Amino acid sequence: MDRPTNSTCPEGFLDRLDAFSQIGTTDDGGVDRVEASPANGLARRELARRMEAAGYRVLVDGIGNMFGLLELAEQFAGQEAPWVFAGSHIDSQPKGGRLDGAYGVLAALEAGQALKERLAGRPAKANLAVVAWTGEEGARFQPSLLGSSVHAGILPLEQALARKDGNGVSVADALDAIGFRGRDQAPKPSAYVELHVECAPALENSNTRLGVFDRWWGAHKLELLFTGATAHTGPTPMAKRKDALLAAAEVITGLRRLADAAPAGALHTSVGRLEVLPNSPNVVPDSAKLFIEIRSVDAKVMADTHARLMELIPYAATLARVAHRIVRDEYRAPGAFEIGLRTLAREEADHLGILPMSLETIAAHDAMPVAKLCPSVVIAVPSRDGLCHSPREWTDPRDLELGVAWLGGILERLVVDGPESV
Amino acid sequence: MDRPTNSTCPEGFLDRLDAFSQIGTTDDGGVDRVEASPANGLARRELARRMEAAGYRVLVDGIGNMFGLLELAEQFAGQEAPWVFAGSHIDSQPKGGRLDGAYGVLAALEAGQALKERLAGRPAKANLAVVAWTGEEGARFQPSLLGSSVHAGILPLEQALARKDGNGVSVADALDAIGFRGRDQAPKPSAYVELHVECAPALENSNTRLGVFDRWWGAHKLELLFTGATAHTGPTPMAKRKDALLAAAEVITGLRRLADAAPAGALHTSVGRLEVLPNSPNVVPDSAKLFIEIRSVDAKVMADTHARLMELIPYAATLARVAHRIVRDEYRAPGAFEIGLRTLAREEADHLGILPMSLETIAAHDAMPVAKLCPSVVIAVPSRDGLCHSPREWTDPRDLELGVAWLGGILERLVVDGPESV
Repeated sequence: MDRPTNSTCPEGFLDRLDAFSQIGTTDDGGVDRVEASPANGLARRELARRMEAAGYRVLVDGIGNMFGLLELAEQFAGQEAPWVFAGSHIDSQPKGGRLDGAYGVLAALEAGQALKERLAGRPAKANLAVVAWTGEEGARFQPSLLGSSVHAGILPLEQALARKDGNGVSVADALDAIGFRGRDQAPKPSAYVELHVECAPALENSNTRLGVFDRWWGAHKLELLFTGATAHTGPTPMAKRKDALLAAAEVITGLRRLADAAPAGALHTSVGRLEVLPNSPNVVPDSAKLFIEIRSVDAKVMADTHARLMELIPYAATLARVAHRIVRDEYRAPGAFEIGLRTLAREEADHLGILPMSLETIAAHDAMPVAKLCPSVVIAVPSRDGLCHSPREWTDPRDLELGVAWLGGILERLVVDGPESV
Repeated sequence: MDRPTNSTCPEGFLDRLDAFSQIGTTDDGGVDRVEASPANGLARRELARRMEAAGYRVLVDGIGNMFGLLELAEQFAGQEAPWVFAGSHIDSQPKGGRLDGAYGVLAALEAGQALKERLAGRPAKANLAVVAWTGEEGARFQPSLLGSSVHAGILPLEQALARKDGNGVSVADALDAIGFRGRDQAPKPSAYVELHVECAPALENSNTRLGVFDRWWGAHKLELLFTGATAHTGPTPMAKRKDALLAAAEVITGLRRLADAAPAGALHTSVGRLEVLPNSPNVVPDSAKLFIEIRSVDAKVMADTHARLMELIPYAATLARVAHRIVRDEYRAPGAFEIGLRTLAREEADHLGILPMSLETIAAHDAMPVAKLCPSVVIAVPSRDGLCHSPREWTDPRDLELGVAWLGGILERLVVDGPESV
C-alpha cells in the first residue's frame, strides 16, 4: 500500500477503511476484534465517533447492536416513516481479516453520508439506519448472528445475554465491560441491504466484480453421543464389544456416502470434531461424541438427509452394540433473499455497467435472520482466493470503492422511493 | 479375609502373599507398583530380603531383572549345570491387582524353598532360579515384557534402557533412582515355568482349577497417520476436501469387517485410540492418527489380515484424498509353548488329581520372549470373572495353594531329572 495508514486526516473511503483496520491489528496484517474484547470496544467507540461526526444519531440496544440513524423522511400524519437498514458487523474472528464485516458497515456509513449530501434536505420516503450487529462471528459467543437474531425476535434477549464464552463470561458481563450494553429502543427495518466481501471464489473465478446472493444454504448442526463399555482390546470377544468409536466411524462413513450420492454441490456433510474416551490404544472406547453438520440450499435435501441420518445412527449403534443420544440438533432453514431487492440490486449494478453474478451463500450472514423481519439481501464484491477468516483477506481497492457506489445507488432508490416500492 | 494382613510373623504362603500385597496397596484393595516407582522399589527390596532369607543368592542384571539362585546341582567336569527358571513379575498396572505377576514370583520362591528342603542335599541335575522380570506390564515404559525381552536377546539392552516414560524419564534413570540397575551377569535358562492367574474366564466358566497355556496369540500393533488439509466444513466442495477423519473412519469400519468375516474367535481387531486435529466442529480435520491392533493365534490369519489392512489404508486415503504414513508397525508372532513342558505340567496336575484345561493366552506373558531361549510354559489358576489389571482381582485361596503345589511338582521333575529329560 502506498497510502499512509492510520491517517489523522483521511482523504477518501479507502483511507478511512485503512484507519479503522488499525484497531485490533495483528502482526500479519489481519485484525483480532473478537466480540466485546478491548479491541472490539475501541472499534465500537471509533464507529460511534464517526457516525456522530457524519450527523448520525447513535443508539445501542440491549444486545449491543449499534445503530446510526439518519432521519431523511417527512412524517405523514405523525406516523414515523419506514427505516431502511444497511450494515454488517465489526467483530472478527481471532485471526480475522480487515474486510469481513467492517467493510459493509463502513461502506454503509459512507453511502449514507453521500446520500444525505445528494438529497440536500429534499425529503425522502424512508429514513436510513447504518447498523453494526453484535457477535456475528460466533467466535467467542455462540450462536453466531447473535445481535441480528435478537433484533429479528428469533433469539430472546435474556437468553442471548446469558450465553457464556469459554471462560464462563456472559455476553451481558462482556458487553458491560466495554460499556456497550445499551438501553436504547431501535427502530425495526423495512428493508435491509448488507454489502460483504464474497468469502468464496465464484466472482474471482468468473472475473466478475459484483454479485447478488439469491439464496442461502441451510444447516443442521448436531452433537451425537455413543456410549458403550470399556474392555481390553486383546481378549474381549468381538461379539461382546460395545465399541463407541466403531459406531462413530459408521456414521462418519455413512454420512459421507449420502453427500457423495447427491448431485455435485447439492449437499455438504461433515464431522469435524470427534471426542473419544478413554482413547487408550488397548481399551475399547466407551464414549464417542461427534459434531455433525449437514448443509444444503434445498430444504427437501436437508430434510431427507436428516431423516437418513436418523436411520443411520441407530443402525450404527446396533452394529456396535452401544447406546446413542442426540445431545443437540440445531436447524437453520435454507432460504431465498427477497426477489424485489435482488432485482433492484441488479438494476443498480447495470447503472454501473456491470452484470452481477448470481450467488448462493453457505456461510451465514446477518441478513438471514433479518430476512424474518423484512426484505433483505446480501450483495458482494470479490475476495481474493475466496478468503475470509484469514489475515490474508484482500479485495482490489477499485472493487471496494465500486461496492460503496453500488450500495449508495441501492440505498438511494430505497430511501427516495420508499421500501414498499420494491 | 479372616487372616491378619501384613503379619510380622507369617505362617504360610497365603500370609506371605498377603504381606507382600501391602506394598503399594491402594484403598480399593489393589496395588500400584508401576515399574521403578517407589512402591516397586520397596517390593523389589522385600523380594531380595525374602530370597536371601531363604538361601537364594540374589543377582540384578542391567535391565533390573532380579534372579534368586539356588545351586542344587553337582558340577560335571567343571561345567555348570543347566538352570531351570521359574517366576513372573512384581510390577503392576497403576490400578492393578494383588496377584497378576506377584503370585507367580512368590509361588516360585515358595516352591523352590520347599524343593530344596525335600532334596536335603541330594544332588540334582539342574539349578533353580526364581526370576522377577522388569517392566512386564508396559504401563510406564513401552514395550511391555521389557526385561524378559532383553534377557532373551530380542531387545538390545541399551535400547531398552533408553525408553522413556510419559514424563521423559528413561528406564536407566528410573532404575537408578530405586537402586535396581544392576551389573550382574545372570545365567540363561534351559527351561522356564511361569505360574499366573488366568486373566480370562475359561477356567472359571468350566469349573476347572488348573490350566496349561498351549499357545499364545500374535499381535500387530500399528500407528497410522492420515494427513489432509484443513478447510471450512461449509463452503468447501465435497470433492475438494482432504478429510483425514474420513480416512480414519474407513479404516475403523473396514478393519472391523475383517474381524466379523473371520470365524468366531479367530481374529480380534481394534482401534482404541484416535487423535484428530484440529478437532473443531466447522473445520475439515487435516490429521488423524489411529492406534490399530490385530490379534490372532494363527500366523496365517495375522499375515492375511495385515495384508488386507495394507490394501485398506491406501483405499481409504485415496477416497478421502489424504496422505498416509505408517508410523509404527510392531509384530509379535503367535506361537506355541513347548510340548514337552506342557505334557510334564499335565502329568503333574494328574498327580494332584486334576485334569487341566487347555488354554490360549491373548494377553502377553514373559514366557513368550523366554520361549526364544528355551522350552517355556505358562500354567494358570482361575481368576474370578477373568479379571486382571483390576483391584478386584481375586482367586480362591485354595486354588492359590494348589498352584504352588503344582509348580513345586513341575520344578522338582525339571531339577531332579534335568530339563533335557523333558
